[in-house]
Amino acid sequence: MATTATTHPLLDTHRETLEAATQALRERSYYSRYPESPSPRVYGEGSSERGQLAHQETLNKDFDGLEEQPTTGRSVGSEKSPYGPTLGVRYPELDVDAAMEAAQQALPAWRDAGAEVRAAVLTEVIERINARSHEMAHAVMHTSGQPFVMSFQAGGPHAQDRALEAVVVALEEQRRVPESVTWEKPAKGDPIRMQKDYRIVPRGVALVIGCNTFPTWNAYPGIFASLATGNPVVIKPHPHAVLPLALTVQIARETLAEAGFDPALVQLAAEDDGGTLAKDLALHPAVKIIDYTGGPGFGHWLETEAAGAGKLVYTEKAGLNTVVVDSTDDLKGMLGNLAFSFSLYSGQMCTAPQNVYVPPTVRTDEGDLSAAEFAEKLGQAISGFTADDAKAVEVLGATVNDDVRGRATDIPGLADRLGGDVVLDSRAVAHPSYPDAVVRTPALVGVDAANDAAYTQECFGPVAFVIRTEDTADSLRRFSRTVAEHGGMTAAVYATDEEVLDDAREAAADAGVALSENLTGQIFVNQTAAFSDFHGTGANPAANAAYADAAFVSNRFRVITSRRHV
Amino acid sequence: MATTATTHPLLDTHRETLEAATQALRERSYYSRYPESPSPRVYGEGSSERGQLAHQETLNKDFDGLEEQPTTGRSVGSEKSPYGPTLGVRYPELDVDAAMEAAQQALPAWRDAGAEVRAAVLTEVIERINARSHEMAHAVMHTSGQPFVMSFQAGGPHAQDRALEAVVVALEEQRRVPESVTWEKPAKGDPIRMQKDYRIVPRGVALVIGCNTFPTWNAYPGIFASLATGNPVVIKPHPHAVLPLALTVQIARETLAEAGFDPALVQLAAEDDGGTLAKDLALHPAVKIIDYTGGPGFGHWLETEAAGAGKLVYTEKAGLNTVVVDSTDDLKGMLGNLAFSFSLYSGQMCTAPQNVYVPPTVRTDEGDLSAAEFAEKLGQAISGFTADDAKAVEVLGATVNDDVRGRATDIPGLADRLGGDVVLDSRAVAHPSYPDAVVRTPALVGVDAANDAAYTQECFGPVAFVIRTEDTADSLRRFSRTVAEHGGMTAAVYATDEEVLDDAREAAADAGVALSENLTGQIFVNQTAAFSDFHGTGANPAANAAYADAAFVSNRFRVITSRRHV
Repeated sequence: MATTATTHPLLDTHRETLEAATQALRERSYYSRYPESPSPRVYGEGSSERGQLAHQETLNKDFDGLEEQPTTGRSVGSEKSPYGPTLGVRYPELDVDAAMEAAQQALPAWRDAGAEVRAAVLTEVIERINARSHEMAHAVMHTSGQPFVMSFQAGGPHAQDRALEAVVVALEEQRRVPESVTWEKPAKGDPIRMQKDYRIVPRGVALVIGCNTFPTWNAYPGIFASLATGNPVVIKPHPHAVLPLALTVQIARETLAEAGFDPALVQLAAEDDGGTLAKDLALHPAVKIIDYTGGPGFGHWLETEAAGAGKLVYTEKAGLNTVVVDSTDDLKGMLGNLAFSFSLYSGQMCTAPQNVYVPPTVRTDEGDLSAAEFAEKLGQAISGFTADDAKAVEVLGATVNDDVRGRATDIPGLADRLGGDVVLDSRAVAHPSYPDAVVRTPALVGVDAANDAAYTQECFGPVAFVIRTEDTADSLRRFSRTVAEHGGMTAAVYATDEEVLDDAREAAADAGVALSENLTGQIFVNQTAAFSDFHGTGANPAANAAYADAAFVSNRFRVITSRRHV
Repeated sequence: MATTATTHPLLDTHRETLEAATQALRERSYYSRYPESPSPRVYGEGSSERGQLAHQETLNKDFDGLEEQPTTGRSVGSEKSPYGPTLGVRYPELDVDAAMEAAQQALPAWRDAGAEVRAAVLTEVIERINARSHEMAHAVMHTSGQPFVMSFQAGGPHAQDRALEAVVVALEEQRRVPESVTWEKPAKGDPIRMQKDYRIVPRGVALVIGCNTFPTWNAYPGIFASLATGNPVVIKPHPHAVLPLALTVQIARETLAEAGFDPALVQLAAEDDGGTLAKDLALHPAVKIIDYTGGPGFGHWLETEAAGAGKLVYTEKAGLNTVVVDSTDDLKGMLGNLAFSFSLYSGQMCTAPQNVYVPPTVRTDEGDLSAAEFAEKLGQAISGFTADDAKAVEVLGATVNDDVRGRATDIPGLADRLGGDVVLDSRAVAHPSYPDAVVRTPALVGVDAANDAAYTQECFGPVAFVIRTEDTADSLRRFSRTVAEHGGMTAAVYATDEEVLDDAREAAADAGVALSENLTGQIFVNQTAAFSDFHGTGANPAANAAYADAAFVSNRFRVITSRRHV
């Protein structure tokens, strides 16, 4: 029978959290459920040590908690930390058809539990993930190459906040559909009265394809949006970043089982390098929804082939993140802020700035600077910020793969090939604890604006371009055109003049990208806050969706009405 | 400059209407803004005569009000009434590239007007369409072949209610995004404060492809949803049903211009039979959104090719509308209700029932009936209902095209080809006013359930199948499987037993189709009420969207944030 569960012990447990998060979402005001400080004052005495120990204990053995997943009997796993060590974790290979059947079997009870119960159970999942944030930080660090504090924050609490955001965005959309109404149409004599029941049904199995650099942060919105709307999820991590999502799946399955649901609602589909699992899963007839973060090649394939095959496809790919420099009344703050944005995780964030448009003269509180002088000062700011190896590695992290390393190693060659000049070379930094880690400071390459072939493709990693334009109007035109055409996740502008800022807002609206203005303090263009900032816009080719708006969730479920006279 | 208009005279004019409609939407309760009765007591003395005269005056000449559309200089128009007369209306052929440019030029001011002003202006458009409902009724009647009262209701007020629904669904979604907030993050010392502005931007040009049978009703949701979210619209009517949408475009352009906006926000792309305009427009780079109602062939092309090319595609195609008969305590009411549903517009509604599953014994308040007895009684109900020619034509309307006529003319041949038997032949009805109209009563063909090839394709027009099943469980299984596989817009069940009704609800949820239970009065399975019933579900292959839920509107716009410290 189709009944909506109205009681579940977890409803009371998480009522306040869900109310607070929902309120924050409506207001888009500041809200964070999960503290970003790894301090023992926040996460408890010994939490750091326990997390590290737990991480150590997962290494070089079969991963725990996936025993009940349907498997081919083989195991997979080829993770190697960007910091050097091989992880040696082995995961059971999923039997895809059996997994799809298990997911479909799990669906009806999850569907019929209703939106409120699903939200409460998922909040419990997130709370338990939060409790293991230190362990997760090590898993994220040793798969993505992020520095430790960033691994903790972005891989832990920030990702958890985005997960909770997805849950409440989905909850709000489902709440808008009443469960049952009486409809009364005036008519001659008695009115015509009908009872109409509205039932929320999920789409089917949802596939989430994770990326190497933000295994949890970029996967959680899709995972939790699909689950919150009733869809079972199969998670296909990047072969180099399985562990953080394996931990997630372990926790989710355990929590679901304890809450009385089938753990097959969440399954891990790990594979070794070079497999074709993502494609196979994407085209599996049971799969109805796909969330993807990663390179533009496969993203484009999903947007054309999988979308054309009737799947709902949500992608985040890559783009040309842009900074338009016009003028500033805080040169020092601006350079410091930008130096951090370029350096953080060596520019390996999908939101890291790449293209810096500079006019012939930059007016500043320290006097007018020529484009060359500005570029030099920006280079100096980066050099200064990354001068101390031991401190630098805690911001730069490690390079994630050979592709990034290759680009960073020969900046003069790269500049030469692109017809540019080296403003700042990348420096190899020795990691005091991990001698095998390849750590690189950001490089700056100068190019003329006319040479747009040089800067209209994404150059992932520690390389940015200082692009010399005719004037700020030229910068804004190029910004708007290149982002509309090639995509962009973020944009920033520095200007003291309100008219220039207005023009920049227009250019950003035309480009379809969010704009940060005059950041000189502790907020950075590459960071967004859950419940307030959207991540991506869905309005340019870098991503066809945003974390997390109504469009991100509202098509993951459908409404089936039944009506009768009463 | 990016300012949101906060004052416009139409805001006050339509505030109450929009409030009432929004409230009804939230409650999904009964609401209708536009009276469905064509009576002069409602629409004013002489309204009927004036409407007829206005219609006469559009015939056999160039259509008024499109003079400013960019044109190739040619004119098109090959409409012929299903009731006989040639309409002789000539429309300017659109210069597609120039039209796209005009639409894009019109976009910024419409975008910057903001959601509230757009909703008010569009309500004014709908009010003016409503004022011309009698004229519109003739236009719909003489393009679709609907009988007059249905043309008035479905082509007029019901379509207008769906248009207003689309406007308020879109308005509600846009209202959820605040215009500006102050975000304050606690920090050591002073909190970090930022102002964040959220700007709603449309996707680009929206294309609406109309159908022959419901030129306005099926086009308005897409037209008004796209306009309400800021997108200019190009409307491509079916070559045989241009006039109702030409009137719509005429009224919209006039209203937009008077309200201070560019009429290029709404353009008509008429073409003659056999053109390729729909395909050309669908793949035009400026087009970002496509709404389509029509045959499954082109609908599938849009869902694969156009969606794969990155367009947002909303389709309504066709399916196997199903009635599951188990038992009834009101045989007379049931047969009367079904006879009307089959007869209305000769089954040429996308929501008309086609497949009637009947078990070996139907329990009724008039005793048990064998499947054959039930089929015979259903046939008698239809014959009786359509016995009087003069009355029958006011329900049946005229057949819309040769395809429908071909099927209706030789029911014995059709039954033979499909391996079925004739339960009720179709009868040619002479129209007292239009001797050239081909008017047909519904036919019933009996088939065994095992012969599923016979009834698993849509048989558009006045033919329905009485399918003999093993029992009701067999009926429900077949219902669920065939609709999940081939699609369905509507479903109905007749059963006196609550358990059977529960099973039917489960089957409908699995099939992804809305269910009407035990309709015996003046509500019919083929009709849905705006603001309360969704039309389509988006959960089966018949349609990938529903009129009108959040998913129908929320991706037609995106949100661009700008943020700065304050």
